[in-house]
Amino acid sequence: MTLSLSSIAKQLGLEFTGEDKNITGVNTLEKAGPGDISFLVNPKYARLLETTNAGAILVGPENVEKVDSALISSNIYLDLAKVVKLFEVPQGRMTGSSELAYIHESADIAKSATVYPFAFVGEGVTIGENSTIFPGCYIGEESTIGTDCTLYPNVVVMGGCILGDNTIIQPGAVIGADGFGYAQTPLGHMKIPQIGNVQLEDNIEVGANTAIDRAALDVTKVGTGTKIDNLVQVGHNVRLGNHCLVVGQVGIGGSTTIGDNVVLGGQAGIADNVTIGSNVKVAGQSGVNNRLADESIVAGSPYMPYPVYLKAMGVCVPRLPEMFKKIKRLEKRLAALETTRGEDHDDGC
Amino acid sequence: MTLSLSSIAKQLGLEFTGEDKNITGVNTLEKAGPGDISFLVNPKYARLLETTNAGAILVGPENVEKVDSALISSNIYLDLAKVVKLFEVPQGRMTGSSELAYIHESADIAKSATVYPFAFVGEGVTIGENSTIFPGCYIGEESTIGTDCTLYPNVVVMGGCILGDNTIIQPGAVIGADGFGYAQTPLGHMKIPQIGNVQLEDNIEVGANTAIDRAALDVTKVGTGTKIDNLVQVGHNVRLGNHCLVVGQVGIGGSTTIGDNVVLGGQAGIADNVTIGSNVKVAGQSGVNNRLADESIVAGSPYMPYPVYLKAMGVCVPRLPEMFKKIKRLEKRLAALETTRGEDHDDGC
Amino acid sequence: MTLSLSSIAKQLGLEFTGEDKNITGVNTLEKAGPGDISFLVNPKYARLLETTNAGAILVGPENVEKVDSALISSNIYLDLAKVVKLFEVPQGRMTGSSELAYIHESADIAKSATVYPFAFVGEGVTIGENSTIFPGCYIGEESTIGTDCTLYPNVVVMGGCILGDNTIIQPGAVIGADGFGYAQTPLGHMKIPQIGNVQLEDNIEVGANTAIDRAALDVTKVGTGTKIDNLVQVGHNVRLGNHCLVVGQVGIGGSTTIGDNVVLGGQAGIADNVTIGSNVKVAGQSGVNNRLADESIVAGSPYMPYPVYLKAMGVCVPRLPEMFKKIKRLEKRLAALETTRGEDHDDGC
Repeated sequence: MTLSLSSIAKQLGLEFTGEDKNITGVNTLEKAGPGDISFLVNPKYARLLETTNAGAILVGPENVEKVDSALISSNIYLDLAKVVKLFEVPQGRMTGSSELAYIHESADIAKSATVYPFAFVGEGVTIGENSTIFPGCYIGEESTIGTDCTLYPNVVVMGGCILGDNTIIQPGAVIGADGFGYAQTPLGHMKIPQIGNVQLEDNIEVGANTAIDRAALDVTKVGTGTKIDNLVQVGHNVRLGNHCLVVGQVGIGGSTTIGDNVVLGGQAGIADNVTIGSNVKVAGQSGVNNRLADESIVAGSPYMPYPVYLKAMGVCVPRLPEMFKKIKRLEKRLAALETTRGEDHDDGC
Repeated sequence: MTLSLSSIAKQLGLEFTGEDKNITGVNTLEKAGPGDISFLVNPKYARLLETTNAGAILVGPENVEKVDSALISSNIYLDLAKVVKLFEVPQGRMTGSSELAYIHESADIAKSATVYPFAFVGEGVTIGENSTIFPGCYIGEESTIGTDCTLYPNVVVMGGCILGDNTIIQPGAVIGADGFGYAQTPLGHMKIPQIGNVQLEDNIEVGANTAIDRAALDVTKVGTGTKIDNLVQVGHNVRLGNHCLVVGQVGIGGSTTIGDNVVLGGQAGIADNVTIGSNVKVAGQSGVNNRLADESIVAGSPYMPYPVYLKAMGVCVPRLPEMFKKIKRLEKRLAALETTRGEDHDDGC
Repeated sequence: MTLSLSSIAKQLGLEFTGEDKNITGVNTLEKAGPGDISFLVNPKYARLLETTNAGAILVGPENVEKVDSALISSNIYLDLAKVVKLFEVPQGRMTGSSELAYIHESADIAKSATVYPFAFVGEGVTIGENSTIFPGCYIGEESTIGTDCTLYPNVVVMGGCILGDNTIIQPGAVIGADGFGYAQTPLGHMKIPQIGNVQLEDNIEVGANTAIDRAALDVTKVGTGTKIDNLVQVGHNVRLGNHCLVVGQVGIGGSTTIGDNVVLGGQAGIADNVTIGSNVKVAGQSGVNNRLADESIVAGSPYMPYPVYLKAMGVCVPRLPEMFKKIKRLEKRLAALETTRGEDHDDGC
């Protein structure tokens, strides 16, 4: 695709400096060629402005002077997203419902939707306008897929689940598998059938090979605008709020409730039956097994306030071997003082 | 489905109090309506008995008085499992072998089994009575699937694996992929072909997108009644005992042996070549790299006895910054005492 | 398959002792029967040489005397790999392109390649000689698969990705899903389209259900000979060097660069935007959030040098409760000394 710099500026509502030219792609300052538009988000890379071959650059007002052809932005990352969107070529090139798909006769599929070969669409399923179901997807009976959704290859949506509009599910994700629930009996673990479902509200993205379990009885729910990365585990009955970011390999235990705008760092684990407030940040690899108030920032396993973690785990723990020696020396010196005073002390250690 | 309270009581062998009524579902005390049966497992929610709209409630004898229509249970969780089972509608509505599946002519598929479209059943495969193979499953050559098994969509069972009766495999799980084994050579890592298999005994459940690797030479084995959650990694040659619970995102390294009735908490990691006894409990996110005796309860990475972990990691570590300051102050006070006594001490730190 | 011991010795370029005999398989010393060849890698199992029923044994020169029929090896693990290779029966028995696959008319598939039923091969895809695409795989448009590759069932390769020669992708792995990138806006997280790709060089193996995200703009790259285990997350824009070993459930954050011959232990997490040198070893469950020089060996979360970790986390932390008590006692003794000297001290704790 070729777009003139002026047309890009117009579509983004931005000013541009320098001569107009044709742009055919987007790349980093290091990789961009004369036909590419690039960007400077992080000031520490400003020196690359001098050496880049980019044809044009998205920069803040403070850097306009350094660039021949600049698109001037006060929110570079956001405008970058918009520029990239202009050059995006979506995955997949088919339209309509393939004859190689299995589509139950009762399924209600919008005319503008796409169903690829080898997709399975069960009884009573609804698929909204402009939604795309890639090969190997399974949509179980009575599930509902909203409008403008994309289910990439091999996504599984078990029966009775509800996906809102603008849902993106990356390949291999599983929505609505059974939660992990058993009653203990003398004969072993007895499965508690999981008869609830999963409901994803609008504008949600779910990463590759992530699993979101159906509720035991009612609903596992993910709020509007929440983005979930790859290989994440969301247990049954979880309530995940709006506009959260759940980074790769996070695990969220069953029946846990999480507020809005929460960020869970990669590989963090949230235990079962925990309540986490809104605007909470949990560092990567943390373990949270207790209630967190709104605005909490925690790290560590077990978790502690982030500033405490930085000192305790980051500074103190690596110095413990040295500190243990120091304590031993203090003890000897103390004993020496006591001895010279005729005291006899045994600390019992 | 509609069942009378009296018929539910009869099927579960329980007494009920109050008038008989029709029940159409199961839900939590907060969500249940007049047509639902609910339950009280955890006494801390007993106050909900006053406000719930549930039509009937599974309660212990001590709470019968508080409930209009009660099913009286001495093992509420177990009876809940049984009640839910009554109202369960299994996933999937097809029967028989679909013409849209690929089934090798040599495969031996029980008449009562179901094979969905786009399932692949290889040469020499056996599938037992009442087993169901959902769309997108792959059953490699010479594998055996027992009776009453359910393989949900996109499950992969590589060739030569053996699944016992009543096996449930959640979507996307992979049974029998190659273990991670390489010989080091001057030219790099040389793959050691993995020519063993995986054997799952009876009554096993495997979670969504979990991977259980085939053995290098002999067998990776999971014992009867063991339940494995989502996104778990089981390495090659592992022996996992009977009636274990392996929670989400656990990793078990190659050639590790684990006894019976072991509980591995979410995201715990067990190293290669480790032996773990029976009735062991490993807390979530723990790291176990050494032998654990029967009945061990451990936590932490590296692991320690659970009570030690609670004090050391839970109480002491967050207080280390303060403790380091205290030690500095002790040192100063000690030096002051020494100085007034004319001593000259340098602790070398 | 039956091979004479002499022919095995010849193919491996090894000497053998004892009488020639027919060998039909490979197994461990404990499991091997008279028709099997076995091996002794770890000297601590040498006692098993006395009790094994193996028909022949791969041993080092020092153990030849103890074995009736020995294959004498100076690199047993490597020769074991070669022996196992002789007895390997590859998964899958089909050849050619199945009529039950979907293959776009523009796809360029080598005559010697195999495409199974229910595989989807998109527009403009190239598949090299002797490569095999198992059922349920998706190869997105304009992707390239090299020669001698194996894509096991349900592997997803999104459009525009490049896989080198001798690539092995275990079942359910996802190559080229979107990276996790969003611009923050007042309306929520705005997706930055991910228009880069993934490039795997030659001789790479990717484990079951692992996810390697496509780059935001340019390329996520894995170097020659690198082996990645199951359930690993590789973020967008990552550069992973040559001959690395990435063990199960590792997570590598976006835009991180990793050198050659690096070993990442199971469940380790590497943060975003980190640079790791070559020949680095990261222990299992470690958390690395900063640059690591070549040859670093680290452990812990947060990471520290491995010897420090062993002492600090392995020895000192479990002793903290005891140490805290000791410090309290020291304080009391010190206060006692001060008191007898008439000093009045308050340490403010």
